Amino acid sequence: MTALKAVMLNCTLKYAPEVSNTEALMLKVKEWWDTMDVETEVVRVTDFDVRFGVTSDEGHGDEWPRILEKVKAADIICIGTPIWFGVRGSVAQLVIERLDGTYNERNDAGQYPLYNKVGCVVVTGNEDGAHAAAETTLFNLSHLGCAIPPNADTYWVGDAGPGPSYIEAGGEHHAYTQRTTRWMAHNTVHLARILKNTPIPAEGNTFDEETDHGPMHNG
Amino acid sequence: MTALKAVMLNCTLKYAPEVSNTEALMLKVKEWWDTMDVETEVVRVTDFDVRFGVTSDEGHGDEWPRILEKVKAADIICIGTPIWFGVRGSVAQLVIERLDGTYNERNDAGQYPLYNKVGCVVVTGNEDGAHAAAETTLFNLSHLGCAIPPNADTYWVGDAGPGPSYIEAGGEHHAYTQRTTRWMAHNTVHLARILKNTPIPAEGNTFDEETDHGPMHNG
Amino acid sequence: MTALKAVMLNCTLKYAPEVSNTEALMLKVKEWWDTMDVETEVVRVTDFDVRFGVTSDEGHGDEWPRILEKVKAADIICIGTPIWFGVRGSVAQLVIERLDGTYNERNDAGQYPLYNKVGCVVVTGNEDGAHAAAETTLFNLSHLGCAIPPNADTYWVGDAGPGPSYIEAGGEHHAYTQRTTRWMAHNTVHLARILKNTPIPAEGNTFDEETDHGPMHNG
Amino acid sequence: MTALKAVMLNCTLKYAPEVSNTEALMLKVKEWWDTMDVETEVVRVTDFDVRFGVTSDEGHGDEWPRILEKVKAADIICIGTPIWFGVRGSVAQLVIERLDGTYNERNDAGQYPLYNKVGCVVVTGNEDGAHAAAETTLFNLSHLGCAIPPNADTYWVGDAGPGPSYIEAGGEHHAYTQRTTRWMAHNTVHLARILKNTPIPAEGNTFDEETDHGPMHNG
Repeated sequence: MTALKAVMLNCTLKYAPEVSNTEALMLKVKEWWDTMDVETEVVRVTDFDVRFGVTSDEGHGDEWPRILEKVKAADIICIGTPIWFGVRGSVAQLVIERLDGTYNERNDAGQYPLYNKVGCVVVTGNEDGAHAAAETTLFNLSHLGCAIPPNADTYWVGDAGPGPSYIEAGGEHHAYTQRTTRWMAHNTVHLARILKNTPIPAEGNTFDEETDHGPMHNG
Repeated sequence: MTALKAVMLNCTLKYAPEVSNTEALMLKVKEWWDTMDVETEVVRVTDFDVRFGVTSDEGHGDEWPRILEKVKAADIICIGTPIWFGVRGSVAQLVIERLDGTYNERNDAGQYPLYNKVGCVVVTGNEDGAHAAAETTLFNLSHLGCAIPPNADTYWVGDAGPGPSYIEAGGEHHAYTQRTTRWMAHNTVHLARILKNTPIPAEGNTFDEETDHGPMHNG
Repeated sequence: MTALKAVMLNCTLKYAPEVSNTEALMLKVKEWWDTMDVETEVVRVTDFDVRFGVTSDEGHGDEWPRILEKVKAADIICIGTPIWFGVRGSVAQLVIERLDGTYNERNDAGQYPLYNKVGCVVVTGNEDGAHAAAETTLFNLSHLGCAIPPNADTYWVGDAGPGPSYIEAGGEHHAYTQRTTRWMAHNTVHLARILKNTPIPAEGNTFDEETDHGPMHNG
Repeated sequence: MTALKAVMLNCTLKYAPEVSNTEALMLKVKEWWDTMDVETEVVRVTDFDVRFGVTSDEGHGDEWPRILEKVKAADIICIGTPIWFGVRGSVAQLVIERLDGTYNERNDAGQYPLYNKVGCVVVTGNEDGAHAAAETTLFNLSHLGCAIPPNADTYWVGDAGPGPSYIEAGGEHHAYTQRTTRWMAHNTVHLARILKNTPIPAEGNTFDEETDHGPMHNG
């Protein structure tokens, strides 16, 4: 079996050492990966001084490049985000914005640098918004080049309105979240292994081929 | 090369024989697939009498089963939808709701029946809403079991406010839409071929394994 | 006190006489309105043969005009929708699409015909998606001309994953949903009464004034 | 006529003195307000050191309290945001998250402190995502207590894919955006004046009344 690398970006709004509910669920995914020959690094984004922007280095001491390096080295990219006001939090949005910079780079095959990586998402909130947070994030990752396996998300939310968060509510015992955690952990590894052996060929998905615009014009 | 089957569900609100802009862009995808040994069927959903509901047969002459059969036989599932009020149209929503019925079935490996199929989306509107329509639809497909390749969407929208639609506006000559059409057509085929040769194993992603809930409890 | 008229469109996917959870919560709003001199009509959209489309009469026996008439006669418009796949159901989407036809009409003051009406939304689901369903729907109503009071939504959802729906889960006793129901019921009436006495003047919000495009060009 | 106060929060990702497209469109709204006896302050959020969080003062030199003070003093609250990856930018998300702190306060009548203020939104992007950005933001503002008039948004986006932004593309001459700017500017003032004269009464929308849960239990 090929060893795989995973990076998990914890996009909690909280600064260390405050306890992060999102991290608690992320670690459940990591537990599975630990049994599957995956080398996982968990990064709390607020540990870094990341500037707002859409390039890969915004200067002024911007620490995004240190995170980006980890992203590029990984086979599996996991975004973990809390829900605020029904959508993903501002730190997750910031992370995705900063990944915009990768659109200006190519891998050796001429594709976006995130091609042949696998994306997934972990969401927690005390209520409602997991679908919104997950769908936006997975779609953004797929635009950036990631492949998305089936059931590539796991989340925990309580019922309508304010209430306890994942840790306090004992979300780790919630059967649905346990199942989706297991499915996501396995499917990301399955697809990452498959793509490691058989990458998506650089055919029809690069800018270099841009001289023609339709199949009819292929010489 | 393995021959592949694709089904394209055109979720226009229009009844035949009205011209569908969404279909016009869908056919651009099909043009590519025609050159790639893919057998493609385009289905206009409003040609069928599909009832509202969330099972695979709602009775009363419900014609969804005829569409579902095509979906199950395909390697690539493409949802084509217009944008209305900033989101996917009601027919696309109806189609996704009806796919809910597949959650009650399993493939031979014990996974959801859409596992090892590849999902993609085509969106047209005279303005704004393509991301919303695409992200919701791709996320739903991934939940149902589809894998999503990189750049699995193509869309055309005009600038802010009412205006001409894809056909009238000459959207077929829009460079961005041409490129994303090409990328999507190729990446869906690439991933479908890869999964045909190396399916996602039924390991960690079925209900049958549900006796334990964490990696620590694996015997 | 002015008597007010409210129309509640129940956009359940279910056909009568199936029990609708969304209706159950809608009736909680109606209970409040019944005590506040509001004459409320609840309409189940699937009781009517409403065609897909974006005009006010799609012919072929289309029964939308019968619903539209009720909408136009009301001071308060309430859309009730279940959540399916994280967003509002297809019937709610259909209803909003059909309201597109009102963009072609004007009230006596030259504004869209839904001006000076108040919009609100009721959402139920066994889990996650209430914010998405509510925000899209309220935004659409505001575009069509409705004013939106504070806290114009009420919803009930259970925790992550499949589970019992509103009625079975005893959602009527859920404190958060009770509160938002009360707030919404009152605020819609408050604002409807205010606008009944002091309508939004036809100044700066009609097409007739379209000869100039900026304040500097006002003669 | 009552003089009104408006605060416009420019949530561009750019730090001064970089030119902000969002601000350019916001100033078009301000032009109208300048003719309507509205005192408007435009604030670029990145001029302040605002920490991530969900309280009204996150300490460590957090400058949010200075912005919050302006928000509380205003009759009209306008959020201006660019679109990134199909949704509102991270700075706008951050601003909304920080407004969460106001849920813990009450106005003199016992309502949320943003009651009787009017909310609106300005969105720019080189393409697609205006509906998503606007609907989420207006919904959040309505939850926080703002009333939303009809047509409470104005936006400019170009057609599908990357392209010039508002200023470079000459968006100020785009007829649709001009119209929605005019409508929004007027409707916010209309509703703010109406609510200034006739506030939403503190009846059925405060926590103090929470001893009973349904109209039937009213003594």
